[in-house]
Amino acid sequence: MGKSENIPLPAVRRLSLYLRQLEAYADENHRTISSRQLGEVLGLSDAQVRKDLAYFGQFGHPGIGYRVPELIQRVRRILGTDKLSRVLLVGAGNLGRALIAFRGFQKRGFELAAVFDKDPDKVGQMTDGPNRLKIWDLSEMPAIVRKHSIRVGILAVPASAAQQVAEEMVAAGIRGILNFAPVPLQVGPDVSVASVDLAIHLEQLSFELNSVAP
Amino acid sequence: MGKSENIPLPAVRRLSLYLRQLEAYADENHRTISSRQLGEVLGLSDAQVRKDLAYFGQFGHPGIGYRVPELIQRVRRILGTDKLSRVLLVGAGNLGRALIAFRGFQKRGFELAAVFDKDPDKVGQMTDGPNRLKIWDLSEMPAIVRKHSIRVGILAVPASAAQQVAEEMVAAGIRGILNFAPVPLQVGPDVSVASVDLAIHLEQLSFELNSVAP
Repeated sequence: MGKSENIPLPAVRRLSLYLRQLEAYADENHRTISSRQLGEVLGLSDAQVRKDLAYFGQFGHPGIGYRVPELIQRVRRILGTDKLSRVLLVGAGNLGRALIAFRGFQKRGFELAAVFDKDPDKVGQMTDGPNRLKIWDLSEMPAIVRKHSIRVGILAVPASAAQQVAEEMVAAGIRGILNFAPVPLQVGPDVSVASVDLAIHLEQLSFELNSVAP
Repeated sequence: MGKSENIPLPAVRRLSLYLRQLEAYADENHRTISSRQLGEVLGLSDAQVRKDLAYFGQFGHPGIGYRVPELIQRVRRILGTDKLSRVLLVGAGNLGRALIAFRGFQKRGFELAAVFDKDPDKVGQMTDGPNRLKIWDLSEMPAIVRKHSIRVGILAVPASAAQQVAEEMVAAGIRGILNFAPVPLQVGPDVSVASVDLAIHLEQLSFELNSVAP
């Protein structure tokens, strides 16, 4: 049992958003930020921001607000992204290759350490781009997971293969799956799954457009 | 001014999640669903579900719950996805090609109608896969937006080009942008932006893993 038990999930989600806002402030060389400023862009009240950060034992300094570099470090420590952690990717198709090229992961504390596919034409090849990685066969996953102490995997395979591959990932020792396949995954209670639903954002845009214009 | 004015944004977000759950029930041929069942998978109380749906004038039937096909239709109508709407895509790189191949959009009421790029080597080519589309030059966007009455565009270009391309999309008549570039976009108040932050989900997984294991 861990520290997240009594913290509402939405507060955890907002931590990532606070971190984005803090990093934007740091990029502009601001040294402090008020709870109002931290909440403004996110549409949250200053009271909500203070309450969220208090869950994690973070309190602003009266008359100063939060010290930006300090709070960035603390939020990263809470999220577990203060140290670079290695993740693997299964699926070297178009989406997989886009994810390999995506620079945002490294910036956020994640290093893509290994790529897997089951297509014999792809296995053994190197990926393109600046972050060149060898593509391994799925059967190599358990050994590589152990060797690099990898706990998180990104699943970017077709929907029809997703459940089977997820089970292989879990068997190999993966404990967190970022799922891009548009199907729900059945995994044990000791495995966390975050699903990226690309269509959900389009629905939200659709709602907004239908609301403001007849 | 429209109907969304008094509805909290999180309730709108949850509509998409209710819709997923309803569709899963419909796939299993369930005809009714209770507010408890609707909230269960999402970790929401039945009271929260009833409150959310009441914002949109949807009420369950005492002793029956919600009728699944009826509620699906109503939620789609609220979201504006009951009719197929055409969207465009800018950026025919790896991510763009993955999005073209993604079948989930059509299932959710979105038809990818046109693809744009500014790379002369790509312009004029056809995309691969079952959904073959011609890649147009960015300069053709205003005419195509008008011709197909497109209001939503997906932005899948490198971060360095995103702001410039977003401005061209707005000038062409686009009113909603699904942004995959890892940079915030500056657009006017009459344009909605939804940003897909791929790293945020990894952070959430990282938090969960750090919370349950030492």
